[in-house]
Amino acid sequence: MTRKILITGGAGFIGSHLARRLLSEGEEVTVMDNLFTGTKVNIYDLLDNPRFTFMLHDVTHPFWGQFDEIYNLACPASPIHYQRNPVETIKTSFMGMMNVLDLALKTKARVFHTSTSEIYGDPEVHPQPESYWGNVNTLGTRSCYDEGKRAAETLCADYLREYNVDVRMVRIFNTYGPSMHPQDGRVISNFVMQALHDKDITLYGDGSQTRSFQYVDDLIEAGMRLMRLDRAKLDRFFAGRGMTVPVVNVGNPDEYTIRQLADETLRQLPASKSQMVFQPLPKDDPRRRKPDITLAAELLGWSPKIPLREGLAQTIAYFRGLQ
Amino acid sequence: MTRKILITGGAGFIGSHLARRLLSEGEEVTVMDNLFTGTKVNIYDLLDNPRFTFMLHDVTHPFWGQFDEIYNLACPASPIHYQRNPVETIKTSFMGMMNVLDLALKTKARVFHTSTSEIYGDPEVHPQPESYWGNVNTLGTRSCYDEGKRAAETLCADYLREYNVDVRMVRIFNTYGPSMHPQDGRVISNFVMQALHDKDITLYGDGSQTRSFQYVDDLIEAGMRLMRLDRAKLDRFFAGRGMTVPVVNVGNPDEYTIRQLADETLRQLPASKSQMVFQPLPKDDPRRRKPDITLAAELLGWSPKIPLREGLAQTIAYFRGLQ
Repeated sequence: MTRKILITGGAGFIGSHLARRLLSEGEEVTVMDNLFTGTKVNIYDLLDNPRFTFMLHDVTHPFWGQFDEIYNLACPASPIHYQRNPVETIKTSFMGMMNVLDLALKTKARVFHTSTSEIYGDPEVHPQPESYWGNVNTLGTRSCYDEGKRAAETLCADYLREYNVDVRMVRIFNTYGPSMHPQDGRVISNFVMQALHDKDITLYGDGSQTRSFQYVDDLIEAGMRLMRLDRAKLDRFFAGRGMTVPVVNVGNPDEYTIRQLADETLRQLPASKSQMVFQPLPKDDPRRRKPDITLAAELLGWSPKIPLREGLAQTIAYFRGLQ
Repeated sequence: MTRKILITGGAGFIGSHLARRLLSEGEEVTVMDNLFTGTKVNIYDLLDNPRFTFMLHDVTHPFWGQFDEIYNLACPASPIHYQRNPVETIKTSFMGMMNVLDLALKTKARVFHTSTSEIYGDPEVHPQPESYWGNVNTLGTRSCYDEGKRAAETLCADYLREYNVDVRMVRIFNTYGPSMHPQDGRVISNFVMQALHDKDITLYGDGSQTRSFQYVDDLIEAGMRLMRLDRAKLDRFFAGRGMTVPVVNVGNPDEYTIRQLADETLRQLPASKSQMVFQPLPKDDPRRRKPDITLAAELLGWSPKIPLREGLAQTIAYFRGLQ
């Protein structure tokens, strides 16, 4: 039977991939977005699908609708965007989550919440398992995002324990692919855009800090599997591991240094005249982040399939098409 | 000139002490409280003061008023209370803070926010300086309080940086004294009530975990001094220490084991027939917490003055009077 599905932030990078995937599986999809960082361009091909609806609305204001599932993706995720209006960022994260959970409570919708590796902050444990509590500054310029996302997780845990809302969380690690915002400010879009425009490729610090890069299709696959799991099975799985809240890391554990990423970008764009330049490391920048995906493998039989080389080629093709 | 002052949560333990102190200094005081854990009993002696107003209102709903200063104390602070409705607890912390800051932004009120040592969680650094980021579980049963308070700090930091709201924060460590809730569930009220009623004195674990206990008058004195500081001086002080947000630990660094506290309680109540009993340590219970108050000493010329023996005697006298 066709499911009615709401995606908050559905005109964003990840949300639009999710909408496309769910439509391809025959579901009825409503995308809610305030178009702050999301854009109609990302969902333009979906607008004439009779099973698709776009709803211009800000998730911080209450809303109503009868949905079987709600995917909560609404929140600017790149520092360049979320620091433009920090108060709005933390409000989006917290009040958006609250509105989603309130609606789910009243309509018995299943909730998928996209948390983030940022809740681990600057981790002292490597790689990070779901049981790691994180190392986050409450007062820094990244806090509006990090603490907003931490408080959203707490809301999920409490709506689950207090009201039995069927909520499932993923902590997403660095994800990239077509439909990324070209001025996203994060490393893959930066490097590709710089290389395409023959501009200097900017590395912070000495470029030896590592990141893991997950191609967006791998993330969507994990999310689909998590949402299709039977509730009783899910509860047993987590209870057996001493966890009261279903949360799984979803990311690609292959580590690359920022320098390696720059090298691979230039290798794929041999005509580029770009040079690498080095700048000081910004304050509060996490030095190292890598998911422990044991739990996702056990629960979902999932692991990332798309290597950086291949995903990067797709992403470069997308950015080239924007020109 | 008389200041107009709002205290959210002003019918609670600390809020009522603050109201009394501000009235004694000639200020005009409005106490807002939803009376969830606060009680009219705490402010009964103030009700006929023409400079005092009580306002029955829940801080999670917007409100309006022209005040020179707002003291934000609204939030149940003991696990037994804040875990009764965890969703409401985190909402109180986050939305209450947002409503206070929104009002302050529009009316140019100075804001005093009571944060908490709970934002340090189960600390891996001892004692805890303001620069310590904390070790908090986002998904535990204490998270509604801890993460709510962390997010409230972030809101303060962002309203200050983004809108220049004059906000000053204290991170309060364990505080006790007359007007504590007798069923507060925390250790001092537990021990005194148990000893007064000849019931077993319950220690968790082996009682070797330490706590620092601050008498309420010491806290109020620190708060008064912080709020009377000139803004420019305050900014210089923190900027000189590489901090963008004024926050100070306020607590008593004298450490006592829970066992020592039980001994002192029984020493002061020699007629009590209570016996000590030992129970397993609850999950997520912080093992050790002690403030580093260097910053408060330098900024406010303040240190706690009232020893445990004396404060405990006052508290016992109060609880005895309730019988």
